[in-house]
Amino acid sequence: MVDSADLRWLAAAARLSARARPLSRPNPGVGAIIVRDDVVVSRGWTQGGGRPHAEAVALNGVDARGATMYVSLEPCAHVSSRGPACADLVAASGLARVVIGCGDPDPRTAGAGIARIRGAGIAVEQVDCPASRASLAGYLAQRTLGRPHVTLKLAMSLDGCIARTDGESQWITGPEARAHTHAMRAQSDAILVGGETLRTDNPRLDVRLPGLSAQSPRRLVLTHGEAPEGWQAIPSPEAIHGLRDDLYLFVEGGAGAASAFLRAGLVDRLLLYRAPILIGGGRQGIGDYGLSALAQAHDRWHKTDQRQLGKDTLEIYEANPCLPALSPL
Amino acid sequence: MVDSADLRWLAAAARLSARARPLSRPNPGVGAIIVRDDVVVSRGWTQGGGRPHAEAVALNGVDARGATMYVSLEPCAHVSSRGPACADLVAASGLARVVIGCGDPDPRTAGAGIARIRGAGIAVEQVDCPASRASLAGYLAQRTLGRPHVTLKLAMSLDGCIARTDGESQWITGPEARAHTHAMRAQSDAILVGGETLRTDNPRLDVRLPGLSAQSPRRLVLTHGEAPEGWQAIPSPEAIHGLRDDLYLFVEGGAGAASAFLRAGLVDRLLLYRAPILIGGGRQGIGDYGLSALAQAHDRWHKTDQRQLGKDTLEIYEANPCLPALSPL
Repeated sequence: MVDSADLRWLAAAARLSARARPLSRPNPGVGAIIVRDDVVVSRGWTQGGGRPHAEAVALNGVDARGATMYVSLEPCAHVSSRGPACADLVAASGLARVVIGCGDPDPRTAGAGIARIRGAGIAVEQVDCPASRASLAGYLAQRTLGRPHVTLKLAMSLDGCIARTDGESQWITGPEARAHTHAMRAQSDAILVGGETLRTDNPRLDVRLPGLSAQSPRRLVLTHGEAPEGWQAIPSPEAIHGLRDDLYLFVEGGAGAASAFLRAGLVDRLLLYRAPILIGGGRQGIGDYGLSALAQAHDRWHKTDQRQLGKDTLEIYEANPCLPALSPL
Repeated sequence: MVDSADLRWLAAAARLSARARPLSRPNPGVGAIIVRDDVVVSRGWTQGGGRPHAEAVALNGVDARGATMYVSLEPCAHVSSRGPACADLVAASGLARVVIGCGDPDPRTAGAGIARIRGAGIAVEQVDCPASRASLAGYLAQRTLGRPHVTLKLAMSLDGCIARTDGESQWITGPEARAHTHAMRAQSDAILVGGETLRTDNPRLDVRLPGLSAQSPRRLVLTHGEAPEGWQAIPSPEAIHGLRDDLYLFVEGGAGAASAFLRAGLVDRLLLYRAPILIGGGRQGIGDYGLSALAQAHDRWHKTDQRQLGKDTLEIYEANPCLPALSPL
């Protein structure tokens, strides 16, 4: 049985895992907290390149006997050349109890991690923790869908325009919203823009935040043609199924790339930065994506967060995973 | 001197005045509350057709001696065939004190109402109360600008569309947002749509809410041509300067009417109903309104309210009165 204190610790472990993103790739960013008598003994999160794992960091040099470990993902059961299996480390740790926020769908672990820890006489509880699942969105998308988690970002006016008709788009949103976009880039493994956006805007798409400039993600362009130096060409949205090492893909537009990803049902999250301005008859943020009736548009998105960024508003919508794409693959 | 309790009573009087809207036209909807020892003695608001005034209703049959009256607008100083001057009624009331939320710009009263009441030995305080001013927006627009207060309403998708390209627009927003629109109509003296919207949608624009169906406002169409029966033709946005008896005009679109009013600088308030759907390349809510650079678009609107209406969001923006229209008259 888990109680509300257990759920709070699990949520804290999930928050901790944000520190691993995105440098843990291709491994999931995991968070672990060891607690004894309501006091934190140690913490850990997945390190750059994926090793050591969160559990190994948290257990390193610590007397964990009798304590409880909260970990956002089931400890791995497979030894690799890069490090020990976390399930073995945990089994030998003397921990009294392990609480896990999300099972690992990787067939080398799925349930085997839990079984090995239980075999060492340690109590194990697995909870379906929404915060843990959300923190593992990229990893779960790769394991269950074979592609990265996709966020579509749009910076728009109140009337849904991303530029004037002559293409002027600097600036619609203010410095706070643009800084937030850079922070979102820094959490992504790759960024994608459409071919026309690359040709006309030639965006840098780097992270221009102090201390994070080294964290600029890889740059992809949606095109059937050649990619310029420093860019990788992706011929179609469906081709992101080939990006097996990227957990988080950030699609920054324009309207053609946005509608191509929406048409393919390959947008998991919308990030809408909205400036309190009217453009009037400007360039629309999203092109035709295959809707054949308004009824099809409903119930595809639900708002999960909203905040003010200077004069602008950020709204975050998550896709309803139960609805099929308009043009299934 | 006024204290915070006075300001709360003034705000209450302003809220009360909402009951007068829109049936008090062409008179302003005013609210009055008489208070003695922090207890409400009586209340009043402007009655249908404008008479009796709020002060007369509040004073009717009440012993007001020694009490304080809070009133959202300066009591009128002019006797008309339709009723007495409120300043005379107040002067004879025995009230100890009157607190006024907004001066009356009508030259027949402006200051004269206050002088007459003070002349009767009653203490008078005039405060610049934002709630009072907001509640008198239509009246103040007529007195200072010679036209009704204009609200532009748009029901849009997240990407700023008001219909699919084939014109399908039923429904973008849900029943809660549509009911809210009907309540907003019931608070308006007149509703306007563009000529194309009238021809293609033939909207009823009535109030379909129980108990309020008799409150359906007059219907205007923006056209150089003839108006059909039951409608009044308005050849241009500027022609609303001829609507001297209307305090509140509700512009319901389409994109042409919206951009015409924006171009003329004749939109005081935006009511944006936004559904959590993407249409993609549909009909835009606002056409070109003469913006020649993005910089001109900024600082024209500030959000004053936001609420959830079922699955939809309502955002209310007020125009910055200090910025000129893009194409001044």
